[in-house]
Amino acid sequence: MSDSLPARQPIVIPEEDLAGSISSEVFRAAFRLHPAGVAVVTADPGDSPIAMTVSSLASVSTEPPLLVFSVSALSSSSPALERADTVVVHMLGADQLWLARLGATSGIDRFADTSTWTRLPTGEPVFPEVYAWMRGKIVYRLEAGNSIICVVHVIEAQIPDPGHDAQATSPLVYHARTWHQLGQHSTID
Amino acid sequence: MSDSLPARQPIVIPEEDLAGSISSEVFRAAFRLHPAGVAVVTADPGDSPIAMTVSSLASVSTEPPLLVFSVSALSSSSPALERADTVVVHMLGADQLWLARLGATSGIDRFADTSTWTRLPTGEPVFPEVYAWMRGKIVYRLEAGNSIICVVHVIEAQIPDPGHDAQATSPLVYHARTWHQLGQHSTID
Repeated sequence: MSDSLPARQPIVIPEEDLAGSISSEVFRAAFRLHPAGVAVVTADPGDSPIAMTVSSLASVSTEPPLLVFSVSALSSSSPALERADTVVVHMLGADQLWLARLGATSGIDRFADTSTWTRLPTGEPVFPEVYAWMRGKIVYRLEAGNSIICVVHVIEAQIPDPGHDAQATSPLVYHARTWHQLGQHSTID
Repeated sequence: MSDSLPARQPIVIPEEDLAGSISSEVFRAAFRLHPAGVAVVTADPGDSPIAMTVSSLASVSTEPPLLVFSVSALSSSSPALERADTVVVHMLGADQLWLARLGATSGIDRFADTSTWTRLPTGEPVFPEVYAWMRGKIVYRLEAGNSIICVVHVIEAQIPDPGHDAQATSPLVYHARTWHQLGQHSTID
């Protein structure tokens, strides 16, 4: 964390500006046109492991390596995420649709099947089946409306072998409440 | 903007933590496994229109409607974006691959073909061919490594007619330096 910056900030929008917002229905309709890669974020603040499916993961900076994602402040995993110092971000392929669903289903024990996950030496839960995961420290939290934007400094990663062809993978994509997989069949270039 | 919060903040990571970063090569390799929807962000601070292709667009909050994207601080459009109060975010379909390429190509006049764009009454450039666009006010800028994370409060949107089926669209996706389009052929559910 910075000496000069609180680790957490709220974005406050003045009342008179809020009145000019578009409706949440229109906003949702616009974002139904926007596809996204799918990731599962895990953490454990010490007393309970959490796993959440997110469609907001993005690379922000390469030097230093920083990524960003956001989660609803109303999510059941949100309080534990608030207390966690570190997270593991998993990139999902189409074969991990089960994991995407697991991290998006309410009211279940997402860690019930102990054959699917383990713990890193540093304590965070990890689902090792994925193409790649990254472990990092949450360096900034921004309260934005009904969500928290988390900025993460990546300090460890598990990626495929150097000879691996990323174009030959089948990553999972979410769009308009439907799951898709990319591959040769979807290439347009 | 908030009374309590500067509109711009740097994230400062202590030197001793920076030393533990993964390499930019490994970070890039991990994100080559992560697909993303494609958007073009336009703005005009008064003296020059800009258009930039981004693969970091995400919905953050529905009430108020907030979105986030990031752009490299080294991009040629970045200085104008810094001075802009408002932006227009365009969601691209596969038919707008030309626009994705336009906003990602250096050293060209991205507004040379005046048949493809116009100006909103509020002054921002808009490419009306897209499925949807949203106009909003930049409410927060976060300096994160070599990029700027922008949080935008959406105040106007152009979306398809209510009867429009989002699942029937063909959005553009970027993955591992390759363009893809979604459709019935890529559905796995």
